[in-house]
Amino acid sequence: MSHTAELIAVGTELLLGNIANTNAQDLSQALSAVGVNVFWHTVVGDNPARLKEALEIARKRADVIITTGGLGPTYDDLTKQTICETFGQKLVFHPEILEEIRVFFEEKAHIPMPANNRQQAELPEGCVIFDNPVGTAPGCAFEVDGIHVLMLPGPPFEMLTMLRRCVIPYLRSISDEVILSHDIMTFGLGESPMEELLRDKMERMENPSLATYAKPSEVRLRATAKAHSVEEAEAMLAPVVEEITAFLGDVVYGVDVPGLEDVCVRMLKERGWTMATAESCTGGRIAERLTALAGVSSVYRGGVVSYWTDVKRDVLGVPQELLAAHGAVSEECARAMAEGACRITGAEVAVSVTGVAGPDPDERGTPVGIVYIGLATPEGTFCRKLDLGKRRRDRIQDLATNHAFDVVRRYLSGLSVEKAKR
Amino acid sequence: MSHTAELIAVGTELLLGNIANTNAQDLSQALSAVGVNVFWHTVVGDNPARLKEALEIARKRADVIITTGGLGPTYDDLTKQTICETFGQKLVFHPEILEEIRVFFEEKAHIPMPANNRQQAELPEGCVIFDNPVGTAPGCAFEVDGIHVLMLPGPPFEMLTMLRRCVIPYLRSISDEVILSHDIMTFGLGESPMEELLRDKMERMENPSLATYAKPSEVRLRATAKAHSVEEAEAMLAPVVEEITAFLGDVVYGVDVPGLEDVCVRMLKERGWTMATAESCTGGRIAERLTALAGVSSVYRGGVVSYWTDVKRDVLGVPQELLAAHGAVSEECARAMAEGACRITGAEVAVSVTGVAGPDPDERGTPVGIVYIGLATPEGTFCRKLDLGKRRRDRIQDLATNHAFDVVRRYLSGLSVEKAKR
Repeated sequence: MSHTAELIAVGTELLLGNIANTNAQDLSQALSAVGVNVFWHTVVGDNPARLKEALEIARKRADVIITTGGLGPTYDDLTKQTICETFGQKLVFHPEILEEIRVFFEEKAHIPMPANNRQQAELPEGCVIFDNPVGTAPGCAFEVDGIHVLMLPGPPFEMLTMLRRCVIPYLRSISDEVILSHDIMTFGLGESPMEELLRDKMERMENPSLATYAKPSEVRLRATAKAHSVEEAEAMLAPVVEEITAFLGDVVYGVDVPGLEDVCVRMLKERGWTMATAESCTGGRIAERLTALAGVSSVYRGGVVSYWTDVKRDVLGVPQELLAAHGAVSEECARAMAEGACRITGAEVAVSVTGVAGPDPDERGTPVGIVYIGLATPEGTFCRKLDLGKRRRDRIQDLATNHAFDVVRRYLSGLSVEKAKR
Repeated sequence: MSHTAELIAVGTELLLGNIANTNAQDLSQALSAVGVNVFWHTVVGDNPARLKEALEIARKRADVIITTGGLGPTYDDLTKQTICETFGQKLVFHPEILEEIRVFFEEKAHIPMPANNRQQAELPEGCVIFDNPVGTAPGCAFEVDGIHVLMLPGPPFEMLTMLRRCVIPYLRSISDEVILSHDIMTFGLGESPMEELLRDKMERMENPSLATYAKPSEVRLRATAKAHSVEEAEAMLAPVVEEITAFLGDVVYGVDVPGLEDVCVRMLKERGWTMATAESCTGGRIAERLTALAGVSSVYRGGVVSYWTDVKRDVLGVPQELLAAHGAVSEECARAMAEGACRITGAEVAVSVTGVAGPDPDERGTPVGIVYIGLATPEGTFCRKLDLGKRRRDRIQDLATNHAFDVVRRYLSGLSVEKAKR
């Protein structure tokens, strides 16, 4: 039997918009991975009456209720008391937990424990206790009338630590199902055309199921299987991933990889090659995505952000005559920028971007959205021309960045650097 | 009379944990700023029965119900139909909206409109229509039995654009209170020391009130006044903003400005100066923040991402002897990088960053978190040394980027480039 969960976050700071409810996201991911269906997220303030109302609603529609927050030592931390009232549980004082909290204060915070932390050592009678090695409030779980109630601390790092150490094992112990997913990563086709292309397959498939998720300028396809074991789930997923990957062709850039840049870096490492960048309208976004990856220094040498035409000429060596004849936003300039980046850094390949991110056309009247991606390689220089349309500046910059990685990815895969056509 | 709101986000991707419900955070902030109390956030999947259940619960406890998501063109986008059923509204087809969507597809996406976008042109009879200039799904609002129901698109940028342009004016029109805020932007003091410093003032103040919001590596102080008119609110806020700004001194970098980079660009424009960048461990993040600003080309010439030491030497001209004697992560190198960036780009000022972002120390054993910011100016070259501690790689990169802007900001303000001390 599969369980149905409701997540209840308690905290006025969420209702004021001071923080986002990232705990709900992290818990949802973890729960879906162990086969618990999350059907509801609820957020209430530090208000016992409204928390009680939320709990009464939740007990009617979910058999796993997980609260986050309200376990602190201050007067407005009332989750435990309210839950115990609602579910008819008795709070019991645990001297050994109080001792742990006292030690935590002395060793980590170097101050004596405030008196009001005593209430954190009270827990529902007979509950499973979830240790909190990185904070003071322990979590816990109890079962009543077939409903599992779990209380977790609100600070995300404490919640995540407890989730990994205690909550997932607890949920696995009450579940007899395994849910497993694989992500097929694509670039070059929007979400709508992708859905149109796959609608028949998606509607036909139930287990494994197939769903699309649009990231900025990419579409992720997730195949998910429910089974009784990991092996069975993997066996169910393998043919689906293979079929979809074959069907979509070179729009697919990887399975279960985080992003296009990771694929480029992996392929460069395999060849023992290094890379450089020359960016105009993307203004450092390609470099930023690369340098976000730890250990990228083995393949990324560096690059130039040649925002002014003078910098294209003086630093990258783009000839003045070329700039005068074709302008800075041109195929010729993109090619010369990439070649210049290879020359001054010594990298085997360099990718360049020059274009108009807007909001206004350039001084030659080139419209917003026109972008050229250059790629200098040992086998010659290539170019992809894009018309990204009259989008927002940041969308054009992000899209052009992804196209630059796609050009590198396609070249290193032995494909034409042209945009995938389906 | 003040209103009570419930936010209902519709989308299975939220329940699977693929994305966080940032719309709830942004809406909550905006609603609290116009005096609407948000008491509940709810998230449901793309499931009409459960959405209907959520709406039935919400109409009993809130008089403003705002949904996000489920307005798209695909078969699982059912928010509008479900809301109309629940509240007894009729959907009416608007040919002029369909025409706008068609134009949007042709002009922005350069493709013909798919047939299934037609349902986005259907809206509840007699509703207030919220234009969507950045997407296809319009939003709307209607009132029934004293309950205001607002439907907004799910993609955060579309939601935010509509929030600013349509939702806030709509909510102001149904409220008889004016709530106004000013943001005092600070850099250089953490949230805890800031709160300690201001605790007495914050506790004493009720209207206007003062609250702290921590952004990554910054603290925003928001002063908020409730009044009967904008003039009255402004008159209440002015002395508070003045007092706090004077009290905090040069930790404050602006009032109601978006970020440190905006302040730097404004000051450069005032002087008629240009700027360049030379980035190692920040890998393009300074360039990226600058080039996110439209019109920055009047002050930002460009820069170098000198990830490899060779690039520092060959492109920026950092002397080999200097690198051999002090290493790439050194005050000497930071200074030479900044001077090199000025030299090769012709900019009046250049900021440089070299440091260890981790996860491992550099080859000379310099520990993670050691970062040098160089600043070359017509008056000489300056340096700020930082020990950012053993933080996560991305946190070090973001913090170092903010420090670089802070160095520029302080220099252009005639202050020492040292970190502010309080």
